[in-house]
Amino acid sequence: MALPVWRRAAAAGRFRLGSGFRGFRESGKERGDQGAEPRVFSGIQPTGIPHLGNYLGALQSWVHLQERYHTVLYSIVDLHSITVPQDPGTLRQSVLDMAACLLACGISPAQSCIFQQSQVAEHAELAWILSCLTSMPRLRHLPQWKVKSQRQNNEGSVGLFTYPVLQAADILLYRATHVPVGDDQVQHLELTQDTARLFNRLYGDFFPIPKAIMGTSKKIRSLRDPSSKMSKSDPHKLATVRLTDSPEEIVMKFRKAVTDFTSEVTYDPEGRPGVSNLVAIHSAVTGLSAEEIVGRSRGMETAQYKLAVAEAVIQKLRPIREEMHRLQKDRGYLQGVLRQGAQRAKEMAAPVYDSVCRLVGFR
Amino acid sequence: MALPVWRRAAAAGRFRLGSGFRGFRESGKERGDQGAEPRVFSGIQPTGIPHLGNYLGALQSWVHLQERYHTVLYSIVDLHSITVPQDPGTLRQSVLDMAACLLACGISPAQSCIFQQSQVAEHAELAWILSCLTSMPRLRHLPQWKVKSQRQNNEGSVGLFTYPVLQAADILLYRATHVPVGDDQVQHLELTQDTARLFNRLYGDFFPIPKAIMGTSKKIRSLRDPSSKMSKSDPHKLATVRLTDSPEEIVMKFRKAVTDFTSEVTYDPEGRPGVSNLVAIHSAVTGLSAEEIVGRSRGMETAQYKLAVAEAVIQKLRPIREEMHRLQKDRGYLQGVLRQGAQRAKEMAAPVYDSVCRLVGFR
Repeated sequence: MALPVWRRAAAAGRFRLGSGFRGFRESGKERGDQGAEPRVFSGIQPTGIPHLGNYLGALQSWVHLQERYHTVLYSIVDLHSITVPQDPGTLRQSVLDMAACLLACGISPAQSCIFQQSQVAEHAELAWILSCLTSMPRLRHLPQWKVKSQRQNNEGSVGLFTYPVLQAADILLYRATHVPVGDDQVQHLELTQDTARLFNRLYGDFFPIPKAIMGTSKKIRSLRDPSSKMSKSDPHKLATVRLTDSPEEIVMKFRKAVTDFTSEVTYDPEGRPGVSNLVAIHSAVTGLSAEEIVGRSRGMETAQYKLAVAEAVIQKLRPIREEMHRLQKDRGYLQGVLRQGAQRAKEMAAPVYDSVCRLVGFR
Repeated sequence: MALPVWRRAAAAGRFRLGSGFRGFRESGKERGDQGAEPRVFSGIQPTGIPHLGNYLGALQSWVHLQERYHTVLYSIVDLHSITVPQDPGTLRQSVLDMAACLLACGISPAQSCIFQQSQVAEHAELAWILSCLTSMPRLRHLPQWKVKSQRQNNEGSVGLFTYPVLQAADILLYRATHVPVGDDQVQHLELTQDTARLFNRLYGDFFPIPKAIMGTSKKIRSLRDPSSKMSKSDPHKLATVRLTDSPEEIVMKFRKAVTDFTSEVTYDPEGRPGVSNLVAIHSAVTGLSAEEIVGRSRGMETAQYKLAVAEAVIQKLRPIREEMHRLQKDRGYLQGVLRQGAQRAKEMAAPVYDSVCRLVGFR
């Protein structure tokens, strides 16, 4: 499963769908992390409610990672979110909403360190040091910058340009060994790895080289246009299922889902992308394989099948939605979780940053 | 007098020479700082021992500023120094040496806050926020980047590119109202002013618009080539007088100073740059005007005059050199000054940064 590392949920929808949770694919062994305590770090931008694709492609696997690794950090990366303009009041609320969402999805503050990035000063501090080890051409050639800056008439902010360096700092600050990433973040993790290697070469072996945990799931696609991924920023309101959608909204979105003129359930992503996307979603929320789903749906018309998928999605999301609503009413609790998370993160970050400062010559 | 704000002493020599201390020229009144407590901020890179040009053009005026303003901060900007490679051990020592130098020049820890930039986390934190308000073209068009990156085959580090944003953070973090700057830093201060204005427009009137304190002094030139400024990085060892030079070294450097074939003392920077540079130096270290100097040196041959200037420089620098050597032996004292300075700086920075976080929506 690919995880929405440091990506605004709004730009998301690039996550891959899995048939339930089927484990991870780790990139090959590398020198540098031998002997380092396994630590997972990932980040999610606080902007916007995650959708079904975010959940199945990423958040669900975050829950599993906290069982598999002793130290797991999930950061609500508000420093990244301001690389494009944000309304302060909305941002403040979004951080709490995202905390509620992570908890509702099953991430446990007892097992994982959930924290707000801006509350740990060392992220920005380490980012500065790493920015002095990163060459301008290296950043300019990252494809995300090219795409994003073109969208803004090549006048993106300096923060938008340098955010991969902040990502590197996010990961290295905790000497993380494993980072769940989506396809579109692979090059950013490579930058992190290269930066760690360069630091180690200059100052002595210090940072583990973090490995990617790649998702193994398929992407969830828009319900209105199965050629594009499900995305928060989709202008079509029926294209995207959010974790907070009511059962009525979910039914409506699936009922209007674009399929084709063949009224039967088969799994053929190339030939029948619309209905195959439904099968993929169905498979992901039930944990059954696509083949099993198709077998069980034999003889069903598409219209009928859409309602079956909607029902399965409603069942899957109901506890999350309800828990999220419950938590959102308890700001004090959410603030407490974030406060404690920041404290724990700070306790892990401070000695690492102190060592970095000693190595660089600041202390 | 122009001050070496955030410039490595090595790249210095662009400072102007004054006939003693003759006050400051402030840029015109502006909205935004009305009602703000006057605060002076300036920074100096820890790399290398300052030279005569640094002292006469900048450090001497820093001493006077601390008498004129209630709150004065002088930062040893080690975060800036790593925008080009540094040896960690040398950097660590250089920070202490620069502290000794500032104290020896007469900057008093009782009147000024002398601190090491990297020890106040909020510099890097605010820099990140400001980087999200700065457009890429704005930085690309700064002439210093063009020059510096060309020197490195257009492959300068990201830190070298973004350091003007860190400068803006340095200043705004203390809501500084006045910034002593050299000619070559005027455009960077303009960036700071623009960034403050943009922040105020987006989030409400918060930052004073800092005003430049421009030096009124003339530049000190190389003793070997009066067409170029005195510079730390001058390959010719006799070109630059350092604050720590022995009397013998100073005599030798002035004796070998390039003049012309007319053996008399006149002040004519265009026609006789070499001897005029000597007059300018003489004027600066004695506080006499160039005219007075020329009047008093009538009938003197150039060779003789060189020794007179050397003697005046030796007299001026002796107490500084001796005090610096004395202080350098007392690491504990220097570390204590920097520790207390960082604490005071932190006390000023923390509430400003907290307000920024509240305005931006992080808190």
